[in-house]
Amino acid sequence: MTSEKNDRYDYLGITDPDKLSAASKRALAWRDLGNEWFGEFEVFDLQGDFAYEAGVVRRDPSALIKHDGKYFVWYSRSTGATDGFAGDIENEKVFPWDRCDIWYATSADGLTWKEEGPAVTRGEKGAYDDRSVFTAEILAYAGKYYLTYQTVKSPYTVRVKNEVGIAWADSPYGPWHKSAAPILSPADNGIWAGEEDNRFKTERKGDFDSHKVHDPCLLYFNDKFYLYYKGEQMGEAITWGGRQIRHGVAIADNPLGPYVKSPYNPISNSGHEICVWLHNGGVASLITTDGPEKNTIQWAPDGINFDIMSSIKGAPHAIGLNRDLDTETEPFGALKWGLTHEYKNDDYQYIRGFRGRRVTTHVAKGEASE
Amino acid sequence: MTSEKNDRYDYLGITDPDKLSAASKRALAWRDLGNEWFGEFEVFDLQGDFAYEAGVVRRDPSALIKHDGKYFVWYSRSTGATDGFAGDIENEKVFPWDRCDIWYATSADGLTWKEEGPAVTRGEKGAYDDRSVFTAEILAYAGKYYLTYQTVKSPYTVRVKNEVGIAWADSPYGPWHKSAAPILSPADNGIWAGEEDNRFKTERKGDFDSHKVHDPCLLYFNDKFYLYYKGEQMGEAITWGGRQIRHGVAIADNPLGPYVKSPYNPISNSGHEICVWLHNGGVASLITTDGPEKNTIQWAPDGINFDIMSSIKGAPHAIGLNRDLDTETEPFGALKWGLTHEYKNDDYQYIRGFRGRRVTTHVAKGEASE
Repeated sequence: MTSEKNDRYDYLGITDPDKLSAASKRALAWRDLGNEWFGEFEVFDLQGDFAYEAGVVRRDPSALIKHDGKYFVWYSRSTGATDGFAGDIENEKVFPWDRCDIWYATSADGLTWKEEGPAVTRGEKGAYDDRSVFTAEILAYAGKYYLTYQTVKSPYTVRVKNEVGIAWADSPYGPWHKSAAPILSPADNGIWAGEEDNRFKTERKGDFDSHKVHDPCLLYFNDKFYLYYKGEQMGEAITWGGRQIRHGVAIADNPLGPYVKSPYNPISNSGHEICVWLHNGGVASLITTDGPEKNTIQWAPDGINFDIMSSIKGAPHAIGLNRDLDTETEPFGALKWGLTHEYKNDDYQYIRGFRGRRVTTHVAKGEASE
Repeated sequence: MTSEKNDRYDYLGITDPDKLSAASKRALAWRDLGNEWFGEFEVFDLQGDFAYEAGVVRRDPSALIKHDGKYFVWYSRSTGATDGFAGDIENEKVFPWDRCDIWYATSADGLTWKEEGPAVTRGEKGAYDDRSVFTAEILAYAGKYYLTYQTVKSPYTVRVKNEVGIAWADSPYGPWHKSAAPILSPADNGIWAGEEDNRFKTERKGDFDSHKVHDPCLLYFNDKFYLYYKGEQMGEAITWGGRQIRHGVAIADNPLGPYVKSPYNPISNSGHEICVWLHNGGVASLITTDGPEKNTIQWAPDGINFDIMSSIKGAPHAIGLNRDLDTETEPFGALKWGLTHEYKNDDYQYIRGFRGRRVTTHVAKGEASE
């Protein structure tokens, strides 16, 4: 054996190099035997207008960008309780993210926030975004600002197909100009079975994103615009012990599109909300909640073919990354701090902060020598 | 493509069978695309003597066995607060599991427990188990009962090497006969650096289990006795964002030994407490807390070469499995309910119940179509 190989075997505590267990073989294949991509998280309450407020939904914070010495964030905002699908779906509120507008807030320190008001509001009756605009992400590029977000057209039925809209501005304060049409729509190759408003009954399921395109997140990467999104399929099943959530990407030469879905989709069979950042010439992705690779951090040199770089114990949901952080010096740098949301109850969610840190040292409790 | 292959591709929502993302290739390699091995857990308080009691440590419940219409469990029991290593380590209590005896309790329903008293107590001064006996597991085999457990000889220094003892009885009520010597010891091939009582300073680290052999769990498998255990290495590092914990197995023809460590050790580079059960002609293992494969359930046809069968969001710690459950009909059957422990605080831990269930259906909150 070479010395390097010996070191690696020693590192893994392998008893006999000629007798490797299946686990040792897998461990030897891990590229990172250290901790570069590994870490843990804590969440905490914020102050000012992001303190929990009864009766108001604030959720799905966008990434944070810094401008004029302040952090800016965009988020879904609605008021009032959720009625669900049982009642009058034309006039009631079916989800906390129904009847939302996209608002923004600013903060000098990331801890105390001031709600500034609406940024992008729902469209006129009959428009593709007349029912709700929500789950926004922000991209600052070449002096312009781009918000991507989900849109729903009324009525908000169980089978409704949502789309993705975009708005742009010359300043994070706005004003925002909305696209006349969606920039991304669900695949149109599934067929519902019967007339019942039931999303599980299909004649044909169609592509992984035949029902919903969610959580759009736009990155400028390799001289193109990569629109990452979460797909939901008509007739969604429970697989790998969780929801059948996949991620896809659509690529354009210009920020306003047209966006072409990658033929390599889905690019993840695990995860939930999109949380991606640039690192080392590629794209990193935090994968949470669903699928066989839940609770991992992955990286793709080409933004499409993601490999598992670490396993984590869990992460905050619906993370809004802080784009002002150094994401290059170390992989976990992008996760140093940012925003998340939490369910106070089924009706109301509020925006909280999170901190992430690499685990590099033994701590006293439970990690002492036993 | 064959129809079966087509089904599998459709199932994964693959856009173009000729253009597979790295994630889709990995997903196609999963043997279980369903939910057989997947599930989630909840924990809850127990009644009777297992209700939390200030001043008493009850932790590391063994497996449950049923006898005389009652469930039996063994566990580590000590009293008083933890002093740590800073003080008089000869006379003070350095850990909650220091100065323990192994007690047992019974229950008709698994919910309300009666503490029956000590089963195996510390040895006379000078014996290998004079300081603490703890973290017990039980095996019922051929009308006899075998308790395996950790032993420490005083003084309980940071560098102390613990061992594994065994006791046997003709009845779960005892009396218990202790082995005159340990049945398992740490590998004796590491070298400490200097005289300071510091477990991180080594000249040579030695095998994965050169410092500690923990959490012994005995299974009767393939006409032999498989003693699974957790190893800790001298000079333990932080790897993969957590403690450097590995699992090993030692095998004997007779329950009392001699036990020979497998040359294939370590059999896991992930996990913490040992939690193993028989299933489908092999051995299943719940892997928690540490390592790159944390939060998975694995299975080995030979009890040694474990493959990942599922990823889970987390599981209770220090599980005591219910050996009375049907572990064959479905993989997750072994995890239907049992015992665990929880840290009320750094000084005191108490025994709680857990329930596990497969996730097979969509539930309302957060899993509805968005």
